[in-house]
Amino acid sequence: MGGKKLHNHNNNNNGAVDTNSNNSNRNGTTTTTTTTVKPPPVTLQQSPIINLDRGDPSVFEPYWRKNGGKCTITISGHDSLSYFSDPNSVCWYMEPELQEAIRRVHRVVGNAETEGCHVVAGTGSTVLFQAALYALSTSSSSSVAAEPMKVVCAAPYYSQYKEQVELLQSRLYEWGGDAETFDGSAAPFIEVVTSPNNPDGSLREAAVANKTGNGKLIHDLAYYWPNYTPITRPADYDIMLFTLTKCTGHAGSRIGWALVKDVEVAKKMTTFMQITTIGVSKDSQLRAAKILNVVAEDCEQHAAGAFGYAGNDADKTFFGESRKLMAERWEKLREAVKDKKDVFTLPKYPKRYCNFSGRYFQPAPAFGWLECKEGCDASALMKAHNVLTRGGETFGVSSRYTRISMIGREEEFERFIERISGIQCVDEEDEEEEEEEEGLVVMNGNNGGDVIRLGNGTSNGHGKWLEQVEVQ
Amino acid sequence: MGGKKLHNHNNNNNGAVDTNSNNSNRNGTTTTTTTTVKPPPVTLQQSPIINLDRGDPSVFEPYWRKNGGKCTITISGHDSLSYFSDPNSVCWYMEPELQEAIRRVHRVVGNAETEGCHVVAGTGSTVLFQAALYALSTSSSSSVAAEPMKVVCAAPYYSQYKEQVELLQSRLYEWGGDAETFDGSAAPFIEVVTSPNNPDGSLREAAVANKTGNGKLIHDLAYYWPNYTPITRPADYDIMLFTLTKCTGHAGSRIGWALVKDVEVAKKMTTFMQITTIGVSKDSQLRAAKILNVVAEDCEQHAAGAFGYAGNDADKTFFGESRKLMAERWEKLREAVKDKKDVFTLPKYPKRYCNFSGRYFQPAPAFGWLECKEGCDASALMKAHNVLTRGGETFGVSSRYTRISMIGREEEFERFIERISGIQCVDEEDEEEEEEEEGLVVMNGNNGGDVIRLGNGTSNGHGKWLEQVEVQ
Repeated sequence: MGGKKLHNHNNNNNGAVDTNSNNSNRNGTTTTTTTTVKPPPVTLQQSPIINLDRGDPSVFEPYWRKNGGKCTITISGHDSLSYFSDPNSVCWYMEPELQEAIRRVHRVVGNAETEGCHVVAGTGSTVLFQAALYALSTSSSSSVAAEPMKVVCAAPYYSQYKEQVELLQSRLYEWGGDAETFDGSAAPFIEVVTSPNNPDGSLREAAVANKTGNGKLIHDLAYYWPNYTPITRPADYDIMLFTLTKCTGHAGSRIGWALVKDVEVAKKMTTFMQITTIGVSKDSQLRAAKILNVVAEDCEQHAAGAFGYAGNDADKTFFGESRKLMAERWEKLREAVKDKKDVFTLPKYPKRYCNFSGRYFQPAPAFGWLECKEGCDASALMKAHNVLTRGGETFGVSSRYTRISMIGREEEFERFIERISGIQCVDEEDEEEEEEEEGLVVMNGNNGGDVIRLGNGTSNGHGKWLEQVEVQ
Repeated sequence: MGGKKLHNHNNNNNGAVDTNSNNSNRNGTTTTTTTTVKPPPVTLQQSPIINLDRGDPSVFEPYWRKNGGKCTITISGHDSLSYFSDPNSVCWYMEPELQEAIRRVHRVVGNAETEGCHVVAGTGSTVLFQAALYALSTSSSSSVAAEPMKVVCAAPYYSQYKEQVELLQSRLYEWGGDAETFDGSAAPFIEVVTSPNNPDGSLREAAVANKTGNGKLIHDLAYYWPNYTPITRPADYDIMLFTLTKCTGHAGSRIGWALVKDVEVAKKMTTFMQITTIGVSKDSQLRAAKILNVVAEDCEQHAAGAFGYAGNDADKTFFGESRKLMAERWEKLREAVKDKKDVFTLPKYPKRYCNFSGRYFQPAPAFGWLECKEGCDASALMKAHNVLTRGGETFGVSSRYTRISMIGREEEFERFIERISGIQCVDEEDEEEEEEEEGLVVMNGNNGGDVIRLGNGTSNGHGKWLEQVEVQ
């Protein structure tokens, strides 16, 4: 389930590879279009694959290589043996140091109101989304419905919500699709609000829940940090999800947290965590506490300005340096794409005042959201140029969109910028001969899925399996 | 869901507390009996609560305090930033060091055949049980059933299996109860085999799956280590679950692993982990690798005897020292219970030859499984003496059984041994006056649940919430 499946076929296409890009869109609509992608120059065909599909936050690694010493922790053989951490907290498996560090960093950054919130820790925020679904769909205030509670999100939505909702075919909840077209008047439902949004970086409020009064809200604020977007106010919602992965880049530690106002919801989320994983790695909790404390202290030391933490010195903090890095990448991308208006465009984001940084700046989201012209399959186009991205259909919209990671390794990003110049999307009739000649065509439609013919077939071992892995 | 719920009631019982001990047994049968528990002496009523409900493995802490230095790890700020670990492994988020250490320790101990198995890491083994349910209930070889696949386990079964199966009300699988009374001839089903068994320590083989050929097996071998039981042969099953928690006592690191023969099952389990938590803490994976390597090296250094690792020197290893500790506790428990034959009895385990230790010994399971006489509610009896245990109904059997943890803290265990002498279960008619006088009675039956009246009502704050937490 989930990843794009690649299968070898014994047909005449000389090692043809099918990629069923509609896999994650079984209930969605499929547009039938036929577009030919101009084969890239031979040099590009032989070029290494650039993987911009995944949201692995390697962009922050150089910062931590330089500044990571302060975050070093040592764990001895007798540390953290017990399941239990804090009998005074609703989230009994959560280390008090981590809870304090989380509250501190939100206070310093000013991106979320923690006062009156319970903190629930998770193995990343992904699992806390599921914990919240469980809590909201079983709460005593829900009418006990014969029907599963619908889970909706405005499209384009983060591709994994649907997968997570559908994974176990729960009777408690089910995927309801795009919030914009959802009728929320009939029964209780859950709306996920991702802000800034993954994939398109837009700032969002609830699309339907607030209108009908039937909706319960989960706010996924994974990217509401000053490395990506201006912090305009402390977010203050019922359930807010955050993750260390996108905040500091420590994806490998798998630490996320939820700020939850209703104690009963927090208890149910904790129960979900207890039954599914009996808590969260203490080693990583203690490491996350250390990292967040170092980040917060750094902010406090450099702080100045009207909001207590705003001023030029904010540029010297982790968030300041990271924002600079993200802004530079976006500048390069916009520059490279400027000449390719006939192929694709990028969204524009207005400048806003950031209370943390004490300046106006344009958001520099973790993902670029490329829009191709009508009829062009954007991810297939990129794939033809050996650039792996995540296509629009995965996010509930047209295949003319695709998402590219802006937070990967520097050298991969630079190679991508270089490669952009060679990418072209042309009309089928212009290119029929070349297609015959070089054996590279992308077709949506009657063939039961997209077909990409490549020059030579590739084996389907573990390497291929890994390529199917979709992360964030 | 799950934990025993305590509610304050506004009735005439002066702060009465209801404990709904049938909470986890909604589909099971309820016996209606009336038994009065003799109130304990005043000194015991005022004595501190001894919590033997949880399987927190604190018993090994003194060993690690003495020997933990060798296991120390240091993690810097720039370590383990990525989601990814090993592109050559089916389990792409698993650190190669951990995989090697797991194979090494199984080879050294001789408790599982790893050759030809894929290793899948989990946040504890709990989540891998769920991953296996997902993999087995969605595999292509299953007939696509309109009905959810039944999950069964011979009673008494580990209380959390049912909770995990039922948590999200999946359409893929559902709880089928006791394997011994299950008709496995009709449709594919999943049988969990726990050996040594939690709660009763028995060694088990499949109860029904092997007979009908319709069953898929999950072997939970969490306790198949020489600290608890003689290692008679390397286990060799399709899916075998293990956890660091019960092997070395490092519950807080939340590291478990599955040995899986079928690559497609291993991939599906990995997909489950990817969608639910995007992998497992790398910090804890690296720590677990270190600990397992230290344990394995220690075994290798002390090894002698017919099987390569058997001999007197095996007593000096972690497993040898831990076995001695467990054996001492069991000796004390059997000694204390010897005089209480009218109240409760313990199972007897035959001596077997342990290939690892090079000697015959009696199993010393992680839990004691107390059986009271007919009509007595064992966990209520213990609770009346301020000893928290986990009642038989949670494990799918009569309330005359209860489970006590043998792996808790030394001082708590010693206090329990002292307290045993005061525990009595007497017939109702003998004690009616005393009951009136001291206000302590346990009744099963017509009152809609067990009622325990305590001398004074207690508040229902976070402390109480934590008491409801059932772990392992």
